[in-house]
Amino acid sequence: MSRMALGLAYDGSSWQGWQTQPHRQTVQDTLEAALGRFAGIDGRVPTICAGRTDTGVHAAMQVVHVDTPLVRRTESWVRGVNAFLPPSIAIQWAQPVSDDFHARFAARSRTYIYLLWRGRVRPPLWAGRAGWCFQPLDVDAMRQAAVTLLGEHDFSSFRSSQCQARHPVRTMHRLDIQERGPFLVFTLRANAFLHHMVRNIMGALLQIGQGRESVAWMQNVLAARDRRVAAPTFPPDGLYLSAIEYPAEFQLKETDGGPQLLSPFIFA
Amino acid sequence: MSRMALGLAYDGSSWQGWQTQPHRQTVQDTLEAALGRFAGIDGRVPTICAGRTDTGVHAAMQVVHVDTPLVRRTESWVRGVNAFLPPSIAIQWAQPVSDDFHARFAARSRTYIYLLWRGRVRPPLWAGRAGWCFQPLDVDAMRQAAVTLLGEHDFSSFRSSQCQARHPVRTMHRLDIQERGPFLVFTLRANAFLHHMVRNIMGALLQIGQGRESVAWMQNVLAARDRRVAAPTFPPDGLYLSAIEYPAEFQLKETDGGPQLLSPFIFA
Repeated sequence: MSRMALGLAYDGSSWQGWQTQPHRQTVQDTLEAALGRFAGIDGRVPTICAGRTDTGVHAAMQVVHVDTPLVRRTESWVRGVNAFLPPSIAIQWAQPVSDDFHARFAARSRTYIYLLWRGRVRPPLWAGRAGWCFQPLDVDAMRQAAVTLLGEHDFSSFRSSQCQARHPVRTMHRLDIQERGPFLVFTLRANAFLHHMVRNIMGALLQIGQGRESVAWMQNVLAARDRRVAAPTFPPDGLYLSAIEYPAEFQLKETDGGPQLLSPFIFA
Repeated sequence: MSRMALGLAYDGSSWQGWQTQPHRQTVQDTLEAALGRFAGIDGRVPTICAGRTDTGVHAAMQVVHVDTPLVRRTESWVRGVNAFLPPSIAIQWAQPVSDDFHARFAARSRTYIYLLWRGRVRPPLWAGRAGWCFQPLDVDAMRQAAVTLLGEHDFSSFRSSQCQARHPVRTMHRLDIQERGPFLVFTLRANAFLHHMVRNIMGALLQIGQGRESVAWMQNVLAARDRRVAAPTFPPDGLYLSAIEYPAEFQLKETDGGPQLLSPFIFA
Protein backbone atom coordinates (compact mmCIF):
# COMPACT_ATOMS: atom_id res chain seq x y z
CA MET A 1 0.00 0.00 0.00
CA SER A 2 1.18 3.51 -0.72
CA ARG A 3 -0.40 6.86 0.07
CA MET A 4 -1.64 9.23 -2.62
CA ALA A 5 -2.77 12.83 -2.16
CA LEU A 6 -5.44 14.19 -4.51
CA GLY A 7 -6.41 17.81 -5.15
CA LEU A 8 -10.14 18.11 -5.79
CA ALA A 9 -12.51 20.86 -6.96
CA TYR A 10 -16.30 20.77 -6.91
CA ASP A 11 -19.42 22.83 -7.32
CA GLY A 12 -21.32 22.04 -4.13
CA SER A 13 -24.70 23.36 -5.35
CA SER A 14 -26.10 19.93 -6.08
CA TRP A 15 -24.39 18.01 -3.24
CA GLN A 16 -25.36 17.54 0.36
CA GLY A 17 -21.90 18.39 1.57
CA TRP A 18 -18.68 16.40 1.72
CA GLN A 19 -19.31 13.77 4.35
CA THR A 20 -20.71 10.35 3.52
CA GLN A 21 -24.44 9.84 4.21
CA PRO A 22 -26.76 6.86 3.93
CA HIS A 23 -28.52 8.37 0.87
CA ARG A 24 -25.15 8.86 -0.87
CA GLN A 25 -25.77 12.31 -2.40
CA THR A 26 -22.44 13.60 -1.09
CA VAL A 27 -19.09 14.44 -2.64
CA GLN A 28 -17.28 11.84 -0.54
CA ASP A 29 -19.63 9.03 -1.61
CA THR A 30 -19.32 10.03 -5.25
CA LEU A 31 -15.52 10.31 -5.14
CA GLU A 32 -15.04 7.03 -3.26
CA ALA A 33 -17.26 5.18 -5.75
CA ALA A 34 -15.29 6.68 -8.68
CA LEU A 35 -12.00 5.67 -7.06
CA GLY A 36 -13.37 2.15 -6.65
CA ARG A 37 -14.23 1.94 -10.33
CA PHE A 38 -10.82 3.35 -11.31
CA ALA A 39 -9.11 0.78 -9.05
CA GLY A 40 -11.27 -1.98 -10.52
CA ILE A 41 -12.47 -3.12 -7.12
CA ASP A 42 -15.96 -4.09 -6.03
CA GLY A 43 -16.69 -1.25 -3.62
CA ARG A 44 -15.38 2.10 -2.51
CA VAL A 45 -11.92 3.42 -1.71
CA PRO A 46 -11.96 5.21 1.68
CA THR A 47 -10.77 8.84 1.70
CA ILE A 48 -9.75 11.38 4.34
CA CYS A 49 -10.23 15.07 3.48
CA ALA A 50 -8.74 18.34 4.75
CA GLY A 51 -12.04 20.16 5.30
CA ARG A 52 -15.52 18.67 5.49
CA THR A 53 -17.63 21.17 3.57
CA ASP A 54 -21.37 21.58 4.25
CA THR A 55 -24.33 21.25 1.91
CA GLY A 56 -24.04 23.81 -0.91
CA VAL A 57 -20.44 24.77 -0.10
CA HIS A 58 -17.96 24.59 -2.98
CA ALA A 59 -14.28 23.70 -3.19
CA ALA A 60 -11.72 25.35 -5.42
CA MET A 61 -9.20 23.18 -3.58
CA GLN A 62 -10.01 20.25 -1.35
CA VAL A 63 -7.17 17.85 -0.48
CA VAL A 64 -7.80 14.16 0.26
CA HIS A 65 -5.56 11.17 0.77
CA VAL A 66 -6.11 7.51 -0.05
CA ASP A 67 -4.12 4.35 0.64
CA THR A 68 -3.88 2.11 -2.37
CA PRO A 69 -1.93 -0.84 -3.78
CA LEU A 70 -2.48 0.66 -7.26
CA VAL A 71 0.58 1.84 -9.19
CA ARG A 72 -0.30 4.33 -11.92
CA ARG A 73 1.22 7.52 -13.31
CA THR A 74 -0.22 10.60 -11.58
CA GLU A 75 -1.69 11.77 -14.89
CA SER A 76 -3.58 8.46 -15.14
CA TRP A 77 -5.07 9.03 -11.69
CA VAL A 78 -6.37 12.44 -12.75
CA ARG A 79 -7.82 11.42 -16.11
CA GLY A 80 -8.93 7.95 -15.02
CA VAL A 81 -10.86 8.98 -11.91
CA ASN A 82 -12.34 12.06 -13.60
CA ALA A 83 -13.85 9.79 -16.26
CA PHE A 84 -16.04 8.33 -13.49
CA LEU A 85 -16.95 11.68 -11.89
CA PRO A 86 -19.87 13.99 -12.83
CA PRO A 87 -19.23 17.47 -14.36
CA SER A 88 -19.52 19.17 -10.96
CA ILE A 89 -16.55 17.27 -9.44
CA ALA A 90 -13.01 16.82 -10.80
CA ILE A 91 -9.61 15.79 -9.48
CA GLN A 92 -7.12 18.53 -10.35
CA TRP A 93 -3.87 16.73 -9.49
CA ALA A 94 -2.52 13.56 -7.87
CA GLN A 95 0.76 13.19 -6.02
CA PRO A 96 2.40 10.30 -4.12
CA VAL A 97 3.09 11.25 -0.49
CA SER A 98 4.89 9.66 2.45
CA ASP A 99 2.92 7.50 4.87
CA ASP A 100 3.02 10.15 7.60
CA PHE A 101 1.07 12.62 5.45
CA HIS A 102 -2.55 13.00 6.59
CA ALA A 103 -4.91 15.26 4.63
CA ARG A 104 -6.69 16.40 7.77
CA PHE A 105 -4.21 16.27 10.66
CA ALA A 106 -1.18 17.49 8.71
CA ALA A 107 -2.99 20.59 7.47
CA ARG A 108 -1.63 23.78 9.03
CA SER A 109 -4.39 26.06 7.80
CA ARG A 110 -7.50 26.22 5.67
CA THR A 111 -8.54 29.20 3.54
CA TYR A 112 -12.14 29.94 2.63
CA ILE A 113 -13.35 32.56 0.15
CA TYR A 114 -16.86 34.00 0.26
CA LEU A 115 -18.16 35.73 -2.89
CA LEU A 116 -20.87 38.28 -2.14
CA TRP A 117 -22.81 39.98 -4.92
CA ARG A 118 -23.85 43.56 -4.15
CA GLY A 119 -26.70 44.78 -6.30
CA ARG A 120 -30.37 45.62 -6.33
CA VAL A 121 -31.22 42.45 -8.25
CA ARG A 122 -30.19 38.84 -7.65
CA PRO A 123 -27.58 37.57 -10.16
CA PRO A 124 -28.89 34.47 -11.97
CA LEU A 125 -25.49 33.69 -13.51
CA TRP A 126 -24.16 33.27 -9.96
CA ALA A 127 -27.18 31.42 -8.53
CA GLY A 128 -25.90 29.00 -5.89
CA ARG A 129 -22.34 30.28 -6.32
CA ALA A 130 -22.40 33.74 -4.75
CA GLY A 131 -24.21 35.21 -1.77
CA TRP A 132 -26.33 38.30 -2.39
CA CYS A 133 -26.96 41.47 -0.43
CA PHE A 134 -29.13 44.23 -1.93
CA GLN A 135 -28.66 46.70 0.94
CA PRO A 136 -25.72 49.15 0.73
CA LEU A 137 -22.77 47.90 2.79
CA ASP A 138 -20.22 49.87 4.81
CA VAL A 139 -17.09 47.96 3.80
CA ASP A 140 -14.79 49.96 6.09
CA ALA A 141 -16.94 49.12 9.11
CA MET A 142 -16.83 45.42 8.20
CA ARG A 143 -13.04 45.60 7.81
CA GLN A 144 -12.65 47.19 11.23
CA ALA A 145 -14.86 44.54 12.82
CA ALA A 146 -12.95 41.76 11.03
CA VAL A 147 -9.74 42.79 12.81
CA THR A 148 -11.40 41.85 16.11
CA LEU A 149 -11.43 38.21 15.02
CA LEU A 150 -7.74 37.93 14.11
CA GLY A 151 -5.57 35.80 16.40
CA GLU A 152 -6.43 33.01 18.82
CA HIS A 153 -9.94 33.12 20.27
CA ASP A 154 -12.73 31.01 21.68
CA PHE A 155 -15.14 31.09 18.70
CA SER A 156 -18.11 29.54 20.54
CA SER A 157 -20.35 32.42 19.41
CA PHE A 158 -19.75 31.39 15.77
CA ARG A 159 -20.10 27.63 16.30
CA SER A 160 -23.20 25.67 15.32
CA SER A 161 -24.94 23.47 17.88
CA GLN A 162 -24.05 20.43 15.74
CA CYS A 163 -20.30 21.13 15.90
CA GLN A 164 -18.33 18.02 16.86
CA ALA A 165 -14.97 19.72 17.53
CA ARG A 166 -13.39 18.95 20.89
CA HIS A 167 -12.77 22.58 21.77
CA PRO A 168 -13.85 25.98 20.37
CA VAL A 169 -10.46 27.72 20.21
CA ARG A 170 -9.17 28.56 16.75
CA THR A 171 -6.52 30.92 15.37
CA MET A 172 -7.61 33.30 12.61
CA HIS A 173 -4.61 34.26 10.47
CA ARG A 174 -6.35 36.36 7.86
CA LEU A 175 -9.74 37.96 7.35
CA ASP A 176 -9.87 40.58 4.63
CA ILE A 177 -12.38 42.00 2.20
CA GLN A 178 -11.59 43.01 -1.39
CA GLU A 179 -13.92 45.00 -3.65
CA ARG A 180 -14.14 43.54 -7.16
CA GLY A 181 -16.71 45.54 -9.08
CA PRO A 182 -20.12 44.45 -7.79
CA PHE A 183 -18.50 41.62 -5.79
CA LEU A 184 -17.06 41.64 -2.31
CA VAL A 185 -14.49 38.87 -1.90
CA PHE A 186 -14.03 37.78 1.74
CA THR A 187 -10.90 35.70 2.44
CA LEU A 188 -10.60 33.85 5.76
CA ARG A 189 -7.62 31.74 6.79
CA ALA A 190 -7.43 29.90 10.13
CA ASN A 191 -5.67 26.82 11.51
CA ALA A 192 -9.09 25.17 11.36
CA PHE A 193 -12.76 26.18 11.37
CA LEU A 194 -15.67 25.14 13.57
CA HIS A 195 -18.95 23.96 12.05
CA HIS A 196 -20.70 26.90 10.30
CA MET A 197 -17.97 29.26 11.55
CA VAL A 198 -17.43 31.09 8.25
CA ARG A 199 -21.16 31.43 7.58
CA ASN A 200 -21.77 32.72 11.12
CA ILE A 201 -18.93 35.23 10.82
CA MET A 202 -20.40 36.35 7.47
CA GLY A 203 -23.78 36.85 9.14
CA ALA A 204 -22.21 39.02 11.84
CA LEU A 205 -20.13 41.07 9.36
CA LEU A 206 -23.24 41.74 7.26
CA GLN A 207 -25.16 43.00 10.31
CA ILE A 208 -22.37 45.53 10.82
CA GLY A 209 -22.07 46.35 7.11
CA GLN A 210 -25.80 47.12 6.98
CA GLY A 211 -25.49 49.41 10.01
CA ARG A 212 -27.71 47.25 12.23
CA GLU A 213 -24.88 46.74 14.67
CA SER A 214 -21.79 48.80 15.52
CA VAL A 215 -18.19 47.81 14.84
CA ALA A 216 -17.73 47.33 18.61
CA TRP A 217 -20.57 44.78 18.69
CA MET A 218 -18.26 42.18 17.12
CA GLN A 219 -16.05 42.24 20.23
CA ASN A 220 -19.13 41.74 22.42
CA VAL A 221 -20.28 38.78 20.35
CA LEU A 222 -16.84 37.16 20.46
CA ALA A 223 -16.50 37.72 24.23
CA ALA A 224 -19.96 36.29 24.94
CA ARG A 225 -18.93 32.78 23.74
CA ASP A 226 -22.62 32.19 23.12
CA ARG A 227 -24.11 31.40 19.71
CA ARG A 228 -27.41 33.03 20.70
CA VAL A 229 -25.94 36.55 20.75
CA ALA A 230 -24.60 36.38 17.16
CA ALA A 231 -26.32 36.91 13.82
CA PRO A 232 -28.21 34.36 11.69
CA THR A 233 -26.11 31.85 9.72
CA PHE A 234 -25.43 33.25 6.23
CA PRO A 235 -26.34 31.07 3.19
CA PRO A 236 -23.66 28.68 1.83
CA ASP A 237 -24.02 29.86 -1.79
CA GLY A 238 -20.86 31.97 -2.07
CA LEU A 239 -18.61 29.85 0.12
CA TYR A 240 -15.52 28.15 -1.36
CA LEU A 241 -12.87 26.08 0.39
CA SER A 242 -9.97 27.51 -1.58
CA ALA A 243 -6.60 26.50 -0.10
CA ILE A 244 -5.01 24.05 2.34
CA GLU A 245 -1.56 24.69 3.77
CA TYR A 246 0.75 21.78 4.67
CA PRO A 247 4.28 21.71 6.12
CA ALA A 248 6.93 22.11 3.42
CA GLU A 249 8.39 18.66 4.18
CA PHE A 250 5.48 17.00 2.34
CA GLN A 251 6.39 18.91 -0.84
CA LEU A 252 2.77 19.24 -1.96
CA LYS A 253 2.16 21.44 -4.98
CA GLU A 254 -0.90 23.41 -6.00
CA THR A 255 -2.76 23.31 -2.69
CA ASP A 256 -3.98 26.87 -3.30
CA GLY A 257 -6.98 26.67 -5.62
CA GLY A 258 -7.74 30.38 -5.47
CA PRO A 259 -5.55 31.51 -8.35
CA GLN A 260 -6.52 28.50 -10.42
CA LEU A 261 -10.26 28.29 -10.03
CA LEU A 262 -11.36 31.76 -9.02
CA SER A 263 -8.87 33.11 -11.48
CA PRO A 264 -10.99 35.82 -13.09
CA PHE A 265 -10.74 37.60 -9.75
CA ILE A 266 -7.02 37.13 -9.42
CA PHE A 267 -5.61 37.45 -12.89
CA ALA A 268 -7.93 39.88 -14.64
CA MET B 1 -51.69 49.19 -23.79
CA SER B 2 -48.19 50.49 -23.39
CA ARG B 3 -44.84 48.94 -24.27
CA MET B 4 -42.28 47.92 -21.66
CA ALA B 5 -38.68 46.81 -22.27
CA LEU B 6 -37.12 44.32 -19.86
CA GLY B 7 -33.46 43.45 -19.38
CA LEU B 8 -33.03 39.79 -18.52
CA ALA B 9 -30.17 37.56 -17.38
CA TYR B 10 -30.19 33.77 -17.19
CA ASP B 11 -28.04 30.71 -16.69
CA GLY B 12 -28.99 28.60 -19.70
CA SER B 13 -27.53 25.32 -18.35
CA SER B 14 -30.88 23.90 -17.32
CA TRP B 15 -33.00 25.41 -20.13
CA GLN B 16 -33.70 24.20 -23.64
CA GLY B 17 -32.99 27.57 -25.11
CA TRP B 18 -35.04 30.75 -25.34
CA GLN B 19 -37.82 29.91 -27.75
CA THR B 20 -41.17 28.51 -26.63
CA GLN B 21 -41.63 24.74 -27.04
CA PRO B 22 -44.53 22.37 -26.41
CA HIS B 23 -42.79 20.85 -23.35
CA ARG B 24 -42.26 24.35 -21.89
CA GLN B 25 -38.71 23.86 -20.52
CA THR B 26 -37.59 27.13 -22.12
CA VAL B 27 -36.72 30.60 -20.84
CA GLN B 28 -39.49 32.21 -22.88
CA ASP B 29 -42.17 29.90 -21.49
CA THR B 30 -40.96 30.46 -17.95
CA LEU B 31 -40.76 34.25 -18.33
CA GLU B 32 -44.16 34.55 -20.02
CA ALA B 33 -45.79 32.47 -17.27
CA ALA B 34 -44.16 34.64 -14.58
CA LEU B 35 -45.33 37.82 -16.35
CA GLY B 36 -48.85 36.36 -16.44
CA ARG B 37 -48.80 35.74 -12.71
CA PHE B 38 -47.41 39.23 -12.04
CA ALA B 39 -50.16 40.73 -14.22
CA GLY B 40 -52.76 38.62 -12.46
CA ILE B 41 -54.10 37.18 -15.72
CA ASP B 42 -55.06 33.62 -16.52
CA GLY B 43 -52.36 32.78 -19.05
CA ARG B 44 -49.11 34.06 -20.43
CA VAL B 45 -47.92 37.49 -21.54
CA PRO B 46 -46.33 37.26 -25.03
CA THR B 47 -42.76 38.50 -25.35
CA ILE B 48 -40.40 39.41 -28.20
CA CYS B 49 -36.65 39.04 -27.56
CA ALA B 50 -33.51 40.49 -29.13
CA GLY B 51 -31.66 37.21 -29.59
CA ARG B 52 -33.08 33.69 -29.46
CA THR B 53 -30.43 31.75 -27.57
CA ASP B 54 -29.98 27.99 -28.02
CA THR B 55 -30.10 25.17 -25.48
CA GLY B 56 -27.39 25.69 -22.85
CA VAL B 57 -26.55 29.25 -23.95
CA HIS B 58 -26.60 31.92 -21.23
CA ALA B 59 -27.54 35.59 -21.21
CA ALA B 60 -25.81 38.30 -19.25
CA MET B 61 -28.14 40.66 -21.12
CA GLN B 62 -31.19 39.66 -23.09
CA VAL B 63 -33.70 42.40 -23.99
CA VAL B 64 -37.41 41.67 -24.45
CA HIS B 65 -40.48 43.81 -24.91
CA VAL B 66 -44.06 43.25 -23.84
CA ASP B 67 -47.30 45.14 -24.43
CA THR B 68 -49.36 45.52 -21.30
CA PRO B 69 -52.26 47.50 -19.83
CA LEU B 70 -50.53 47.23 -16.45
CA VAL B 71 -49.28 50.43 -14.80
CA ARG B 72 -46.61 49.77 -12.19
CA ARG B 73 -43.38 51.44 -11.11
CA THR B 74 -40.38 49.94 -12.92
CA GLU B 75 -38.98 48.72 -9.60
CA SER B 76 -42.21 46.78 -9.02
CA TRP B 77 -41.83 45.08 -12.38
CA VAL B 78 -38.34 43.91 -11.48
CA ARG B 79 -39.12 42.66 -7.97
CA GLY B 80 -42.62 41.44 -8.77
CA VAL B 81 -41.75 39.33 -11.80
CA ASN B 82 -38.54 37.99 -10.21
CA ALA B 83 -40.61 36.63 -7.33
CA PHE B 84 -42.19 34.24 -9.86
CA LEU B 85 -38.93 33.29 -11.60
CA PRO B 86 -36.51 30.46 -10.63
CA PRO B 87 -32.97 31.27 -9.35
CA SER B 88 -31.47 30.79 -12.83
CA ILE B 89 -33.51 33.63 -14.42
CA ALA B 90 -33.95 37.23 -13.27
CA ILE B 91 -35.13 40.51 -14.74
CA GLN B 92 -32.39 43.10 -14.21
CA TRP B 93 -34.31 46.24 -15.16
CA ALA B 94 -37.60 47.44 -16.65
CA GLN B 95 -38.17 50.59 -18.69
CA PRO B 96 -41.21 52.05 -20.51
CA VAL B 97 -40.51 52.51 -24.23
CA SER B 98 -42.29 54.08 -27.16
CA ASP B 99 -44.58 51.92 -29.31
CA ASP B 100 -42.10 51.90 -32.20
CA PHE B 101 -39.46 50.14 -30.10
CA HIS B 102 -39.07 46.48 -31.05
CA ALA B 103 -36.63 44.29 -29.06
CA ARG B 104 -35.68 42.30 -32.16
CA PHE B 105 -36.05 44.59 -35.17
CA ALA B 106 -34.76 47.77 -33.51
CA ALA B 107 -31.54 46.08 -32.36
CA ARG B 108 -28.48 47.40 -34.20
CA SER B 109 -26.08 44.77 -32.95
CA ARG B 110 -25.72 41.80 -30.64
CA THR B 111 -22.60 40.97 -28.64
CA TYR B 112 -21.73 37.45 -27.54
CA ILE B 113 -18.94 36.43 -25.17
CA TYR B 114 -17.42 32.95 -25.15
CA LEU B 115 -15.48 31.89 -22.05
CA LEU B 116 -12.93 29.17 -22.77
CA TRP B 117 -11.01 27.45 -19.98
CA ARG B 118 -7.48 26.44 -20.93
CA GLY B 119 -6.06 23.74 -18.70
CA ARG B 120 -5.17 20.08 -18.47
CA VAL B 121 -8.19 19.31 -16.31
CA ARG B 122 -11.86 20.23 -16.74
CA PRO B 123 -13.00 22.99 -14.31
CA PRO B 124 -15.96 21.74 -12.23
CA LEU B 125 -16.69 25.22 -10.84
CA TRP B 126 -17.37 26.30 -14.45
CA ALA B 127 -19.23 23.18 -15.55
CA GLY B 128 -21.84 24.26 -18.13
CA ARG B 129 -20.62 27.85 -18.00
CA ALA B 130 -17.26 27.75 -19.78
CA GLY B 131 -15.94 25.78 -22.72
CA TRP B 132 -12.80 23.74 -22.18
CA CYS B 133 -9.73 23.04 -24.30
CA PHE B 134 -6.84 21.01 -22.86
CA GLN B 135 -4.57 21.33 -25.90
CA PRO B 136 -2.19 24.31 -26.03
CA LEU B 137 -3.62 27.11 -28.19
CA ASP B 138 -1.82 29.55 -30.49
CA VAL B 139 -3.73 32.70 -29.56
CA ASP B 140 -1.93 34.88 -32.12
CA ALA B 141 -2.92 32.52 -34.94
CA MET B 142 -6.55 32.63 -33.80
CA ARG B 143 -6.43 36.43 -33.66
CA GLN B 144 -5.06 36.63 -37.21
CA ALA B 145 -7.77 34.28 -38.47
CA ALA B 146 -10.45 36.26 -36.63
CA VAL B 147 -9.62 39.35 -38.67
CA THR B 148 -10.73 37.46 -41.77
CA LEU B 149 -14.29 37.45 -40.46
CA LEU B 150 -14.57 41.19 -39.78
CA GLY B 151 -16.88 43.18 -42.04
CA GLU B 152 -19.79 42.12 -44.25
CA HIS B 153 -19.70 38.51 -45.46
CA ASP B 154 -21.84 35.60 -46.55
CA PHE B 155 -21.53 33.40 -43.43
CA SER B 156 -23.14 30.29 -44.99
CA SER B 157 -20.15 28.18 -43.90
CA PHE B 158 -20.96 28.97 -40.27
CA ARG B 159 -24.73 28.53 -40.51
CA SER B 160 -26.58 25.49 -39.19
CA SER B 161 -28.88 23.56 -41.49
CA GLN B 162 -31.81 24.53 -39.24
CA CYS B 163 -31.19 28.27 -39.68
CA GLN B 164 -34.39 30.14 -40.57
CA ALA B 165 -32.80 33.45 -41.56
CA ARG B 166 -33.84 34.79 -44.96
CA HIS B 167 -30.27 35.41 -46.10
CA PRO B 168 -26.78 34.47 -44.84
CA VAL B 169 -25.10 37.91 -45.02
CA ARG B 170 -24.06 39.43 -41.71
CA THR B 171 -21.67 42.21 -40.67
CA MET B 172 -19.10 41.34 -38.00
CA HIS B 173 -18.07 44.50 -36.13
CA ARG B 174 -15.78 42.97 -33.55
CA LEU B 175 -14.08 39.63 -32.92
CA ASP B 176 -11.29 39.73 -30.37
CA ILE B 177 -9.66 37.40 -27.87
CA GLN B 178 -8.45 38.45 -24.44
CA GLU B 179 -6.28 36.31 -22.17
CA ARG B 180 -7.48 36.30 -18.55
CA GLY B 181 -5.33 33.88 -16.60
CA PRO B 182 -6.45 30.38 -17.60
CA PHE B 183 -9.41 31.81 -19.52
CA LEU B 184 -9.65 33.02 -23.07
CA VAL B 185 -12.50 35.52 -23.48
CA PHE B 186 -13.82 35.73 -27.05
CA THR B 187 -15.99 38.77 -27.82
CA LEU B 188 -18.06 38.82 -31.04
CA ARG B 189 -20.28 41.70 -32.12
CA ALA B 190 -22.34 41.64 -35.32
CA ASN B 191 -25.52 43.25 -36.60
CA ALA B 192 -27.10 39.82 -36.14
CA PHE B 193 -26.02 36.17 -35.97
CA LEU B 194 -27.13 33.11 -37.92
CA HIS B 195 -28.16 29.93 -36.10
CA HIS B 196 -25.07 28.33 -34.42
CA MET B 197 -22.86 31.01 -36.01
CA VAL B 198 -20.82 31.81 -32.88
CA ARG B 199 -20.38 28.13 -32.00
CA ASN B 200 -19.31 27.31 -35.55
CA ILE B 201 -16.84 30.20 -35.61
CA MET B 202 -15.47 28.98 -32.26
CA GLY B 203 -15.02 25.50 -33.74
CA ALA B 204 -13.04 26.93 -36.66
CA LEU B 205 -10.90 29.19 -34.45
CA LEU B 206 -10.03 26.25 -32.21
CA GLN B 207 -8.93 24.15 -35.20
CA ILE B 208 -6.49 26.93 -36.06
CA GLY B 209 -5.45 27.49 -32.43
CA GLN B 210 -4.60 23.80 -32.12
CA GLY B 211 -2.51 23.94 -35.29
CA ARG B 212 -4.75 21.56 -37.22
CA GLU B 213 -5.48 24.21 -39.80
CA SER B 214 -3.54 27.26 -40.98
CA VAL B 215 -4.57 30.89 -40.48
CA ALA B 216 -5.30 31.08 -44.23
CA TRP B 217 -7.77 28.21 -43.96
CA MET B 218 -10.32 30.56 -42.36
CA GLN B 219 -10.50 32.57 -45.61
CA ASN B 220 -11.08 29.35 -47.57
CA VAL B 221 -13.87 28.28 -45.23
CA LEU B 222 -15.56 31.69 -45.47
CA ALA B 223 -15.26 31.78 -49.27
CA ALA B 224 -16.66 28.26 -49.68
CA ARG B 225 -20.09 29.31 -48.32
CA ASP B 226 -20.58 25.66 -47.43
CA ARG B 227 -21.13 24.38 -43.88
CA ARG B 228 -19.49 21.05 -44.77
CA VAL B 229 -16.01 22.57 -45.11
CA ALA B 230 -15.97 24.14 -41.66
CA ALA B 231 -15.21 22.66 -38.23
CA PRO B 232 -17.58 20.88 -35.80
CA THR B 233 -19.98 23.06 -33.83
CA PHE B 234 -18.40 24.00 -30.50
CA PRO B 235 -20.36 23.25 -27.26
CA PRO B 236 -22.69 25.98 -25.93
CA ASP B 237 -21.30 25.88 -22.37
CA GLY B 238 -19.23 29.08 -22.42
CA LEU B 239 -21.53 31.15 -24.62
CA TYR B 240 -23.20 34.29 -23.24
CA LEU B 241 -25.42 36.80 -25.02
CA SER B 242 -23.92 39.84 -23.34
CA ALA B 243 -25.09 43.08 -24.96
CA ILE B 244 -27.73 44.46 -27.33
CA GLU B 245 -27.24 47.82 -29.03
CA TYR B 246 -30.26 50.03 -29.90
CA PRO B 247 -30.50 53.45 -31.55
CA ALA B 248 -29.99 56.27 -29.06
CA GLU B 249 -33.51 57.62 -29.69
CA PHE B 250 -34.99 54.82 -27.55
CA GLN B 251 -32.89 55.94 -24.57
CA LEU B 252 -32.43 52.41 -23.26
CA LYS B 253 -30.02 52.04 -20.36
CA GLU B 254 -27.92 49.10 -19.25
CA THR B 255 -28.18 47.03 -22.42
CA ASP B 256 -24.57 45.91 -21.95
CA GLY B 257 -24.57 43.08 -19.43
CA GLY B 258 -20.86 42.38 -19.80
CA PRO B 259 -19.59 44.77 -17.15
CA GLN B 260 -22.43 43.88 -14.84
CA LEU B 261 -22.59 40.11 -14.96
CA LEU B 262 -19.17 39.02 -16.14
CA SER B 263 -17.72 41.70 -13.94
CA PRO B 264 -14.88 39.75 -12.38
CA PHE B 265 -13.32 39.80 -15.84
CA ILE B 266 -13.86 43.48 -16.35
CA PHE B 267 -13.39 45.14 -13.00
CA ALA B 268 -10.81 43.02 -11.23
